[in-house]
Amino acid sequence: MHRTHTCGELRIQDAGKTVTLSGWVQKSRDLGGMTFIDVRDRYGITQLTFDSDDDLSLRGRARELGREYVIKVTGTVIERSSKNNKIATGDIEIKVTELAILNSAKLPPFTIEDQTDGGEDIRMKYRYLDIRRNPIKENLLFRHKVSQEVRNYLSALDFCEVETPYLIKSTPEGARDFVVPSRMNAGQFYALPQSPQTFKQLLMVAGMDKYFQIVKCFRDEDLRADRQPEFTQIDCEMSFVEQEDVLRTFEGLTRHLLMSIHGINIEEFPRMTYQEAMRDYGNDKPDIRFGMKFGELNQASQHRDFSIFNTAELVVGIAVPGAAAYTRKQIDELIEWVKRPQVGASGMVYAKYNADGSFKSSVDKFYDNQDLQKWAEITGANPGDLILILSGPTAQTRSQLSALRMELGNRLGLRKPDEFAPLWVIDFPLLEWDEEAGRFHAMHHPFTSPKTEDIPLLETDPGSVRANAYDLVLNGNEIGGGSIRIHDRHTQSLMFEHLGFSETEAEEQFGFLMNAFQYGAPPHGGLAFGLDRLTAILGGQETIRDFIAFPKNNAGRDVMIDAPSPLSPEQLLELNINLEPTK
Amino acid sequence: MHRTHTCGELRIQDAGKTVTLSGWVQKSRDLGGMTFIDVRDRYGITQLTFDSDDDLSLRGRARELGREYVIKVTGTVIERSSKNNKIATGDIEIKVTELAILNSAKLPPFTIEDQTDGGEDIRMKYRYLDIRRNPIKENLLFRHKVSQEVRNYLSALDFCEVETPYLIKSTPEGARDFVVPSRMNAGQFYALPQSPQTFKQLLMVAGMDKYFQIVKCFRDEDLRADRQPEFTQIDCEMSFVEQEDVLRTFEGLTRHLLMSIHGINIEEFPRMTYQEAMRDYGNDKPDIRFGMKFGELNQASQHRDFSIFNTAELVVGIAVPGAAAYTRKQIDELIEWVKRPQVGASGMVYAKYNADGSFKSSVDKFYDNQDLQKWAEITGANPGDLILILSGPTAQTRSQLSALRMELGNRLGLRKPDEFAPLWVIDFPLLEWDEEAGRFHAMHHPFTSPKTEDIPLLETDPGSVRANAYDLVLNGNEIGGGSIRIHDRHTQSLMFEHLGFSETEAEEQFGFLMNAFQYGAPPHGGLAFGLDRLTAILGGQETIRDFIAFPKNNAGRDVMIDAPSPLSPEQLLELNINLEPTK
Repeated sequence: MHRTHTCGELRIQDAGKTVTLSGWVQKSRDLGGMTFIDVRDRYGITQLTFDSDDDLSLRGRARELGREYVIKVTGTVIERSSKNNKIATGDIEIKVTELAILNSAKLPPFTIEDQTDGGEDIRMKYRYLDIRRNPIKENLLFRHKVSQEVRNYLSALDFCEVETPYLIKSTPEGARDFVVPSRMNAGQFYALPQSPQTFKQLLMVAGMDKYFQIVKCFRDEDLRADRQPEFTQIDCEMSFVEQEDVLRTFEGLTRHLLMSIHGINIEEFPRMTYQEAMRDYGNDKPDIRFGMKFGELNQASQHRDFSIFNTAELVVGIAVPGAAAYTRKQIDELIEWVKRPQVGASGMVYAKYNADGSFKSSVDKFYDNQDLQKWAEITGANPGDLILILSGPTAQTRSQLSALRMELGNRLGLRKPDEFAPLWVIDFPLLEWDEEAGRFHAMHHPFTSPKTEDIPLLETDPGSVRANAYDLVLNGNEIGGGSIRIHDRHTQSLMFEHLGFSETEAEEQFGFLMNAFQYGAPPHGGLAFGLDRLTAILGGQETIRDFIAFPKNNAGRDVMIDAPSPLSPEQLLELNINLEPTK
Repeated sequence: MHRTHTCGELRIQDAGKTVTLSGWVQKSRDLGGMTFIDVRDRYGITQLTFDSDDDLSLRGRARELGREYVIKVTGTVIERSSKNNKIATGDIEIKVTELAILNSAKLPPFTIEDQTDGGEDIRMKYRYLDIRRNPIKENLLFRHKVSQEVRNYLSALDFCEVETPYLIKSTPEGARDFVVPSRMNAGQFYALPQSPQTFKQLLMVAGMDKYFQIVKCFRDEDLRADRQPEFTQIDCEMSFVEQEDVLRTFEGLTRHLLMSIHGINIEEFPRMTYQEAMRDYGNDKPDIRFGMKFGELNQASQHRDFSIFNTAELVVGIAVPGAAAYTRKQIDELIEWVKRPQVGASGMVYAKYNADGSFKSSVDKFYDNQDLQKWAEITGANPGDLILILSGPTAQTRSQLSALRMELGNRLGLRKPDEFAPLWVIDFPLLEWDEEAGRFHAMHHPFTSPKTEDIPLLETDPGSVRANAYDLVLNGNEIGGGSIRIHDRHTQSLMFEHLGFSETEAEEQFGFLMNAFQYGAPPHGGLAFGLDRLTAILGGQETIRDFIAFPKNNAGRDVMIDAPSPLSPEQLLELNINLEPTK
């Protein structure tokens, strides 16, 4: 071993000991006859001293060490004259008697400091240097802790982690698969799993009862910001359960994580139906760390001559706390903000509920004080607040106002990273109308069960059928989602029928699972967490890339290893693959 | 929840309770006015009783239940009149008052019993039924336990599990890669990792200090029996260590597994050099649960007129305990066995060391009693043992005799599944002569460090240079292997030179790792365990397939889901792939 202690380990009690440390040169400085070097490893930083009075040549060698050189030193632990209470080893330093250079280092392309001068691109290219920085290193250690807590919690509840295969079969449903040509089966391909969904259901048919897996999944999508082609799920499934059992189990897991990681106890997670979430927050993953709930103003605003509101399907507002004092310029900037193409509103009405109780709105021509008083009641505005109102088609208007609410939440510092507000959103619709295809498709997936009492509605009003489907939301992010599955052939056939599948199509695409269902499938359901996001949110951040050791960029490239890359002609030949365009 | 208890939970103390159980019908039988049904879940089996005296229609419905129907019953726990001490719930039964069929089941294609009538092919096709059988289910639960123990042990030692990417870059060295066409980067491909080797070394450069990962790896090889195209490794790496530190750490892990799983304590694992293992067992992964060590007989056999021995590079024998009484037929069968093409010996000499102290050999014409006495001494034969001798070129002969030794170990019941004999094989050669390519290649991989004292031999006798490379062997299987890596540019260049790489080739193939090494790489080394095999061996078995939930067959097919399979023309077009042969 090239050390007796780590660089984060020594304390004042160790004074007098002869120790050996190894690590990277963080920085060095000369002061009179002394050279000080900070040596760093994963565990911390320790100060080394080299004194000309003791050994001139040793100090000379120490002065030549560059940043990030890897060194091994032996010396005596002594008490520091000027202590550094910012680091755990700040009471001591090592008076070095032996120095060995284990490896030299070129000057890094960016500084290895908490706040670095390196941009995203260069940090990704030299990710192995980026990880030396505390914030990234701590994120990776944090991710490990979260994974360990998850595994130990679920194992204690008799969940069994089962590894499902990575080389599976491509299915045309859903997002695009990444595929893998088979050399031994010319012209045939494996697919990488988008999730182990079918395998976990098969494990329930197999009687495994409680399954989980922390597992990589793959989706060949055009990447939006902060999406990765490979991502990690905590995938879970249980047998003989109803929705309530699944919610309680994974609420327990999430509560355990919040407690074991942050010491925060949240007794019971609030629940909200999908309808309520859309009505009150315009969003199926509301951030409930702050208020600004939606107030629907149709009734209170469609009795005057203001045609924009009168012709709108929905008129809806929020009260921005303490914003009545906003200047005209500030309000105009907000109006411009909602009119940006990314949000897409055509305009915005405002009403100031001044601290003195008076009102001033952009629609004073149409509405009197009594009207505005009513709006204040409905949006929950208090004196000093600013009411912001959007109108138009329901879905779009809600989405626009939700974007504005989140933006204001950020600007006003209401989305506190050390505050955690989980909630369940339940009763998701079973079906979603696909305008383009002119048919319904499954909102979750075709194996999600409808609520028994809603099954008759499949014939009369399919869009209103509710599913036994639920999302776990944390701080405005969906961190998990799942459903109770269909486990009987009859309901499954009904479902396929309403999704527009012929019997042959259903058989072709889902044959092996349907076949398995015939041999005694138990009632079952489950949930999957997105580990990348869960970890980021629990870590008080929102960028998943900083919680992944070697992420890919938005073009799906790993710029560090330069992948993907061309294959040799020999490799392509062996795989029976030809890259020339088909004639 | 469709149950108050599992089917393995109820005991005599629960008598009188009203309970609800759910599970699969294992079997049913009628006895007079009673129907008995065994209901099964992952946790056990419980007996249900239906009495005509109580409810004729209920019993009638129970009689109609088929095997593997999924049922839910409510009833009272009562003490059994005739107890069954073979099962944990054998003291009680449930007097059923309510019965619901949760799902019906077609008759399974094989019986769901410990000893099934299903052959390998049908079991694989219906793997979800195969897993319902106790032996397979227990194997999967066992695998989970092993993984959990590994994770908790390593985490407690400050190892951090880091997920490395699955979509990486193809490298021409080593085995064939599985590749993944990139849709967004036409004509380019990712590769699936054969191991996270380069990434774990980069994590050491990144200062993560102690890394592990339980991770899927992929190798597109022509499959031999009991090899899988995707397999799981426990991948580990440490910084600032020497070989001794790595051996101690993972000896600790293995000792912990043997203790926590089997309650077996093995103080210190024996160590053997590669040379010793080859000399004494003809094998670099010897099973040391039994003796039959090789005795080299060149000196004791090349002084007579027996030209077969006299012209052989190696004459080597083993003593088979208690086999002097073998009949001529038995011995002939052994001779035929070593002459099979899979073993490839041209013949075998035997010498019986009879219980009365006399000798009888197949070469009595050439050797006298004194010679045979000498052979007995060298092979460690006692009266009653049979000495078997092969001769020929050293490597082949050792391999043949090793195969015979293992076969006899099996036949004589010396390879006891509940006995565990780990050992380290160390000092592997750095280089291996590649007859076909006419050059040396790296025995482990090109980043393995040579022993410092052997570096001068690189110039004079490269084949004799020893590496800091080691294997962990358990019961005749390599369960792990690793090395101390090269971490300085100078040694690495020397290594590439001796492997016949030009500077350009080295740069092209290993550029990003070489580049990383310039920024301060610490001394590091590690090891990877094969989890599939480790689990099987710890489970007292040797077939890894029974410890994998959804394995592939020898043609690399998943016969359950029927993968790989053809893609649609649209998918191929999107991926810029043409399957027509190049003109």
